[in-house]
Amino acid sequence: PQGTRDQRPAHMALREHLFAAVVACFKRHGAAAIDTPALELRETLMGKYGESGKLIYELREQGGELLALRYDLTVPFARYLAMNKITTMKRYHIAKVYRRDSPATSRGRYREFYQCDFDIAGHFDPMIPDAECLKIVHEILSELKLGDFLIKVNDRRVLHGVFAICGVPDSKFISTCSSVDKLDKMPWEDVRSEMVTEKGLSPEAADRIGEYVRLHGGAELIEQLLQDPKLSQNKLAKEGLGDMKLLFEYLTLFGITGKVRRCWGQEEPRAPQLRVLMGFCVPQICFDLSLARGLDYYTGVIFEAVLVQQENDHMEEPVGSVAGGGRYDGLVGMFDPKGRKVPCVGVSIGIERIFSIVERMVKASGEKVRVTETQVLVATPHKHLLTARLKLISELWDAGIKAEMLYKKDPKLLKQLQYCEDTGIPLVAIIGEQELTDGVVKLRVVTTREEVRITFYTRIQKCFDNLEKV
Amino acid sequence: PQGTRDQRPAHMALREHLFAAVVACFKRHGAAAIDTPALELRETLMGKYGESGKLIYELREQGGELLALRYDLTVPFARYLAMNKITTMKRYHIAKVYRRDSPATSRGRYREFYQCDFDIAGHFDPMIPDAECLKIVHEILSELKLGDFLIKVNDRRVLHGVFAICGVPDSKFISTCSSVDKLDKMPWEDVRSEMVTEKGLSPEAADRIGEYVRLHGGAELIEQLLQDPKLSQNKLAKEGLGDMKLLFEYLTLFGITGKVRRCWGQEEPRAPQLRVLMGFCVPQICFDLSLARGLDYYTGVIFEAVLVQQENDHMEEPVGSVAGGGRYDGLVGMFDPKGRKVPCVGVSIGIERIFSIVERMVKASGEKVRVTETQVLVATPHKHLLTARLKLISELWDAGIKAEMLYKKDPKLLKQLQYCEDTGIPLVAIIGEQELTDGVVKLRVVTTREEVRITFYTRIQKCFDNLEKV
Repeated sequence: PQGTRDQRPAHMALREHLFAAVVACFKRHGAAAIDTPALELRETLMGKYGESGKLIYELREQGGELLALRYDLTVPFARYLAMNKITTMKRYHIAKVYRRDSPATSRGRYREFYQCDFDIAGHFDPMIPDAECLKIVHEILSELKLGDFLIKVNDRRVLHGVFAICGVPDSKFISTCSSVDKLDKMPWEDVRSEMVTEKGLSPEAADRIGEYVRLHGGAELIEQLLQDPKLSQNKLAKEGLGDMKLLFEYLTLFGITGKVRRCWGQEEPRAPQLRVLMGFCVPQICFDLSLARGLDYYTGVIFEAVLVQQENDHMEEPVGSVAGGGRYDGLVGMFDPKGRKVPCVGVSIGIERIFSIVERMVKASGEKVRVTETQVLVATPHKHLLTARLKLISELWDAGIKAEMLYKKDPKLLKQLQYCEDTGIPLVAIIGEQELTDGVVKLRVVTTREEVRITFYTRIQKCFDNLEKV
Repeated sequence: PQGTRDQRPAHMALREHLFAAVVACFKRHGAAAIDTPALELRETLMGKYGESGKLIYELREQGGELLALRYDLTVPFARYLAMNKITTMKRYHIAKVYRRDSPATSRGRYREFYQCDFDIAGHFDPMIPDAECLKIVHEILSELKLGDFLIKVNDRRVLHGVFAICGVPDSKFISTCSSVDKLDKMPWEDVRSEMVTEKGLSPEAADRIGEYVRLHGGAELIEQLLQDPKLSQNKLAKEGLGDMKLLFEYLTLFGITGKVRRCWGQEEPRAPQLRVLMGFCVPQICFDLSLARGLDYYTGVIFEAVLVQQENDHMEEPVGSVAGGGRYDGLVGMFDPKGRKVPCVGVSIGIERIFSIVERMVKASGEKVRVTETQVLVATPHKHLLTARLKLISELWDAGIKAEMLYKKDPKLLKQLQYCEDTGIPLVAIIGEQELTDGVVKLRVVTTREEVRITFYTRIQKCFDNLEKV
């Protein structure tokens, strides 16, 4: 189907590596795994995604309930918490979600794709779980070595306050957010004109907004806004800014605000010599008032991580955000018959985008990805030795050794060696008449052709144990 | 939705363990992983599952292609091979499939469930890949320690031959198969009457079939049938029996036909003393002419593994087959424009049934399954120490240690220790004023309350390394 793809073995091997790194981080932070069905009741999903709701895949009515394919993992998580009356939980969930989007497969955008989510639900003291979510993003992006990154942080309440003091009515909050969110792709002038002509804001309101949403910085910017005569009078903004201040304190304790890395801006010179001179520092986490995020359900802290483009990054085009998330304190209550709220904060790792980046990096490096883990091929140098091969390979499997053989009665030795080279099998265990007579197996390193003769069967596992260590 | 369920953390922890064992076996046999979309074109799935085709979930027409959810992993694999013109491949695939079946959730039968498939595609010498599939079933069932099992083996060609010499027309082959396949759940008399009244066979034909399909045994039965005056004249049956003979030779080389285990029949005495006396031996692999398997696409060897019930097995009802598979040489050709055939043989592990068995075993054992892997809780004995906790936990995460803390500014020590006991965290790292002054951390074993004081930060990782080894 359009917008979907088969994952070939080479893809799967890379994916397995990426998933393992993400899961390791989620487990390091004490999360438990859950899984929910890919099918949800249609009514569970409806009215949770705003405009994007039209991209939900619905099932044909075939008798029984009206069903749809899940659009993300957050709404099913909220449904799960409410249904099971769970008020405290730290969980991760890695699974496929479905969107009837116009596929942009070259940019890693598909109709069926994986999401990797980590969420903390429960009534806790402010900003402690929020800070952990940001720490997780930082850990994963550092570990995957994708290059320099920047995590933008904002708070929906601060945006609410800014829009309020600039004269935007509450009813236009979401649509104004969506304009502001485009500031990373469009210059301010275009965003301003969209606000005025499409969203119906007054030019004065738009200009006032512009003064705020183009601000970004660290703890000092939070202080500055807390002193802002107008903004500090707004209750929501004040709350949001107070929490942002606390958040940055915790992030500093986690050691991720202070670290800066040399990085290139947008107007860097081409010549490498000049680049060295022009190298400058940027923080990895930054308070950015232009960050708004599309989804309706966010109520507090929001964040998004982007990769900072560099000369040697093999990216033909910007990859956009590689992680994002925020606080959604109202969503669980929507599924509870009594509307009981369970505050939540979570992060979603953009694994598909990360995957396309890593795939391009691997391609550029010319490295060959092995798709199997086979350690040894069991081979015979001449005819009528199938019995010996079957016995030996069975022995190896039972000893836990990853072994293959060609499914031919009498394969040529050359074909067997060729198979090792094609698939990257490092060792070949050769058993011929002579070896059978002597009760040994000849073990050959495929690349160097070095050989050792080892005693048949009983000692073979020990031998492999030692080889592993080398 | 009906027939689906959420997987809670305790389920997920067990599942992870089972999947890991299955994947390890598949990798040991040199298989590469692939993944295909859960969505397939409707036309890809239609006409591949016979009667069961009506259980396919279809998507609502929302513009674009007509889609359906995959029903198994075999048809998508055949589609994948044909689409990519692959003629040789050994792959595994673990993923969810969807069936609009009447759910019997107590018996582990759901509308959304996992399949774990291993398949070998390619033109090879007879029975070598087929034998490997049976070896895999044997390895996995042995490793998971589910109790005694029996793998029944048959060949569709032998059944064809038997039906032919008993006077069953070709057009009634599939429907006769489906009657025969019920012999493990129904007595022969009922199967016979179904054949005569529902399937329209003559009583004489049914009786003749009965003489064959109630046979089961080992290599000696194959010899006996090869000598059978009528059956040996049938070309298909002769081919099938010849391959069965070869298969059992290979299985013997793999060391899995000779092994017998003490096991209990259906009429065993209740008293344990008598049971010991009555204990007898059964093979783990057996040629069983009553095995027919429902699916249309099998063309040669077919097999199915069942658990042999025992006194102490915690099963309220029979669990049916826990693995099954066979040879399907025609399926890939159905997707190739030129009808080029790629012979395939594969096995599907019934992971959902195995999961319900293991779940019941764990429940009966009273063992508590940990849902997280957290090694240490970072705790403080009194107020105003959040900063110290945040710093220490960050240090631990960065050192790769799985650590948690309570998301409260000033949690009570008792609450923190209680959390460890509830969730099975083995260690607690306590940091108070005294420890801060001395530059140490108090590390306590939760169960024994034994404590050590270790030097702050720098040595903590080394300390954990040593603890791992104990």
